Order: sequence, then C-alpha cells, then structure tokens
Amino acid sequence: MTTVTAEHITAASRASFADAPEPRMREIADALVRHLHAFVSEVEPTREEWIGGIEFLTRVGHMCQGARQEFILLSDVLGVSMLVDTLNASTDAAATESTVLGPSYVDNPPQAQQGDDIARAGDGIPMLVDVKVTDTAGKPISGAVVDIWEGGPDGLYDVQRDLAPGEYDLRARFTADEEGRVRCWAAVPVSYPVPVDGPVGELLSATGRHPWRPAHVHFRIVADGYVPLVTHIFASGDQYLTSDAVFGVKPSLVVELERHEAGVERDEPWQRMTYDFALTAA
Amino acid sequence: MTTVTAEHITAASRASFADAPEPRMREIADALVRHLHAFVSEVEPTREEWIGGIEFLTRVGHMCQGARQEFILLSDVLGVSMLVDTLNASTDAAATESTVLGPSYVDNPPQAQQGDDIARAGDGIPMLVDVKVTDTAGKPISGAVVDIWEGGPDGLYDVQRDLAPGEYDLRARFTADEEGRVRCWAAVPVSYPVPVDGPVGELLSATGRHPWRPAHVHFRIVADGYVPLVTHIFASGDQYLTSDAVFGVKPSLVVELERHEAGVERDEPWQRMTYDFALTAA
Repeated sequence: MTTVTAEHITAASRASFADAPEPRMREIADALVRHLHAFVSEVEPTREEWIGGIEFLTRVGHMCQGARQEFILLSDVLGVSMLVDTLNASTDAAATESTVLGPSYVDNPPQAQQGDDIARAGDGIPMLVDVKVTDTAGKPISGAVVDIWEGGPDGLYDVQRDLAPGEYDLRARFTADEEGRVRCWAAVPVSYPVPVDGPVGELLSATGRHPWRPAHVHFRIVADGYVPLVTHIFASGDQYLTSDAVFGVKPSLVVELERHEAGVERDEPWQRMTYDFALTAA
Repeated sequence: MTTVTAEHITAASRASFADAPEPRMREIADALVRHLHAFVSEVEPTREEWIGGIEFLTRVGHMCQGARQEFILLSDVLGVSMLVDTLNASTDAAATESTVLGPSYVDNPPQAQQGDDIARAGDGIPMLVDVKVTDTAGKPISGAVVDIWEGGPDGLYDVQRDLAPGEYDLRARFTADEEGRVRCWAAVPVSYPVPVDGPVGELLSATGRHPWRPAHVHFRIVADGYVPLVTHIFASGDQYLTSDAVFGVKPSLVVELERHEAGVERDEPWQRMTYDFALTAA
C-alpha cells in the first residue's frame, strides 16, 4: 500500500499551477498554495475544523449583500487590509500616510460647496473640517477632489441606515480652492464598533476581541499628477487609539480637535479639525 | 512623520488574538495571521489585486447555494482538502487509504438491499460493485454501513440534476452481510469535469488547468469500534489518473475493472469492481 504524504500533495498542488499562462497569476497561485498548505500543515485541522472553516467562509460570503461587505471586514480585522495599504504606501517621508478605505466608501458621493454643512439634525457636536491639500513641498493643489465621510453619533454610516435613494449623511465630495483648501461643517466623530451581527462578529467574540474603532473622519483625495490618497484623521484622546479593531491608526494621523464655545460661528459649542495633506507626485 | 511598517502590522494583528480564551482557537488564529501575512507580504498585492481577491471570495460565497458548495470545490482544487485528509489519515499501513469526501455526499442516503440495482435506464454500462469490509487483520465487519455514490454518464451526480425530492440515482446505503460483503449493481464510472460555471472554474481557466477528475466510485464506511473510512475506488486506465483536478488519487485505490460479455448475469456487456476495505480500529 503506497503512502501519499502531505509533502507530495503540496508539491502536486503547486505543480498544477506551473503552466499558468500569465506570470503574475502563476506567482500568486504558487505563493497561495505554499502559504495555505504551510498553515494547514502547521495547525493540522481535524475534518470537523476544516468543515467549520468552510462553513465560516460560506457565511461570510452570504453576508455580503448590498452595502455590507463582510470579506473586507474580515480582511480588516485580520490586519490584511492595513498590510496591503502599507505595502502600497508612498515611500516619500514628506507625504501624508494612508490607511484603510473601509467598507463604507461610496463611489461618486454628492458634490458639495465650500462651507456646506454635511451633517443632519441629531448628528452630534458640530465640527468644522478645515484642511489643505498640497504637494510634498507645500505647494497648494487647487482643484483636488476631496471625498469626506464619517459615521454618525449612533456609530452607523449613512449606507448602514435606511435612507431614501440619493440621500446621504456626513458624506460629500468637495473641490479644493485656489489655496488647496476645503472647509465644511460636519460632526465630531465618535468611536464605534464594526458590524458584529455577522460571522466576523462571531470571530471577534470567540477570540475575546472588542470590535471598536477610534473616532475618525475618512478622506480620499484625488488630483491630476498625484497618487490618490486614502486616509483617516483620528481625534486624539480616544480610548481605542491603541487597539483599533482594524489596525488603522498611524500616529501621524492623530490630531487634537480645537474646542470652541457657543456664540462664535455657531449657537452651540463646536470643534475644529485641521490637517494639511501632502500628496506624492505620480 | 512616523512610519508604520508591515512587520508592525503583522505583530499587532497577532497580538490582538493573544488573549483568546480557547487555546485551540488562539493557536489557529495566530497561525492564520502569520501565514496569511507572509503570503501577502511575499506577493505584495496592489490595491486592485486585493479587491480582486475580495470580489473572488465573495463570488465563491454567493455560489454556495443548495447542493452547490463552491468553497469545498475551491479547497479541493487548491489541494487543501486532500492535505487535510492526509493529515488525518490512519497511520496503519494495513488500513485502506482515504481520499476526499467531495461536495456531492448526501447525509443518510436511501437504504438499499444486497443485490439491488442503484442505476437508472441510461446510466451507461452496468457494473457489479462487489466489495468486502474487514478489520486490518482481515476479519469481516458484519453490519458495517456502506454508503456508495457516483456520477452518471453525463458527468453529473443526482444532486446536480433536477430530480424530484426523495429521488436518487447511483446513490444508496447498504449494510454489509455476515461476511462483511456488499454487492450491488451500479454503472461503470466515467471521468467528468468539476463544475466550471462558477469562480472556481474561472480560476482553473485563468491558470490553464483542466477541470477533470478520473472515473471513480465514492465509498463511506462506518462501523462501531472503527474509524469511519471515506474514500474512492478509481478505474485503472483513465487518462486523468495522473492529473486529477482535486489531487485525490492514491495508487492503492486504483483497480482494474473485470470485463464480462453479455449473456452471463446481464443481457448486455457488464463489468465488475472488486475491493477489500480494511478499517482501522477506533
């Protein structure tokens, strides 16, 4: 009776991809087989654990419906999204650091004008977003397209709520002015849990992890001649800055919000988030 | 500006699972993060390749409906299912070797009697399945529960066709007699492609792999006091024996079918598959 070993099966699996016509596909398939088999050979799953893994991935796939993208969330909580972000980051130390896009981005958000308020009633403490877009030498990039989005005080993004089609909350696209600036009213961000009503929530719960992300505002900035920048600005002092469920925090992206009393600019107390974004030339 | 490195993100991702309460879960999560990050760090996917991977897994998940289990098929074509099978295999050289369960097994198939014909009209060349179940010393295991299933001449299992509920084809459960034997009529198996109308088919096509499996009959044998055996018996001479799309062939499981002329036992030519299964004591 011939014994077929684990090594034999790994070798046969790698060999099956050796004639893939596209070199990059061949490279990825070979690395996938090697690392996946190394993982399986190390943990030696029982058949029950293996089928448990199959069922987990199936539930993740079934949870991907409409605006919910559970595989991105899984990638996020395993640190893979931030790893990909970092491997693709600008090597220019003068450029603003990037972080994960997250699952709540909407392509082509509604265009807004300088000074617009993108919050709705009930969106919490008003915050003036006051940012500038430059190149890495500090030269303003007029006309840069700046997408801004954040969750509300209930911890939910507009895409997670039942808004009418075409309605948005705390989400808009701005065009930087001649000084490279964008100013708008939004809301002071709050920390919130990633969605835990699916299999990724089960994983976090089973492994004793909390699902919280520290308070932040998302930015995606695109300008001709520059590498697109996807990042967050985090509010200092948040208790989850050192344990972000998706590993997205970089110290250079944390700022202190300026606090203002009622009566100046607004009838209620408000805060200001300022940041200078530096884009890498393409 | 602080630079967060790939090594930092991998370390943070591993640390996040360090307090998982269940040791086995902690071990699996740590190994998963290490090997997954090693894979990503080696291939350095672009953001577009990463989202391509997310979308591929999402399509695999959405393809899992009813009897179709695309994640098992993905595990099969990557060699992972056979690797898990081998890592869990009996170490007793006298025991029959196992191979993958495959996605077409049905729990509690219909009970049949010795000598029954489990084929329907049009199922191809009749084949007498004539097998014996013993322990590794050759002692018959009377009462062993033997599930037998195979695809039809169209390359499809009954679960892949539109049969009425409760109807089956080339699938049944037998009970071994006092000599440990099961005899029934089925059909000479044919080689067939795994389902290629989903994302796994796209993967095979993009990497220049064929989807074919060599002709085989599935067996699952369960008996009190013995380790359940899941295996196939392959027909010798098949052109895909050396390139099975799911890496399931083991030399000890390949047999030559006996050919018989019409007139003895059957009015048409028929063949016989014989095999002695040896089960490991639990």
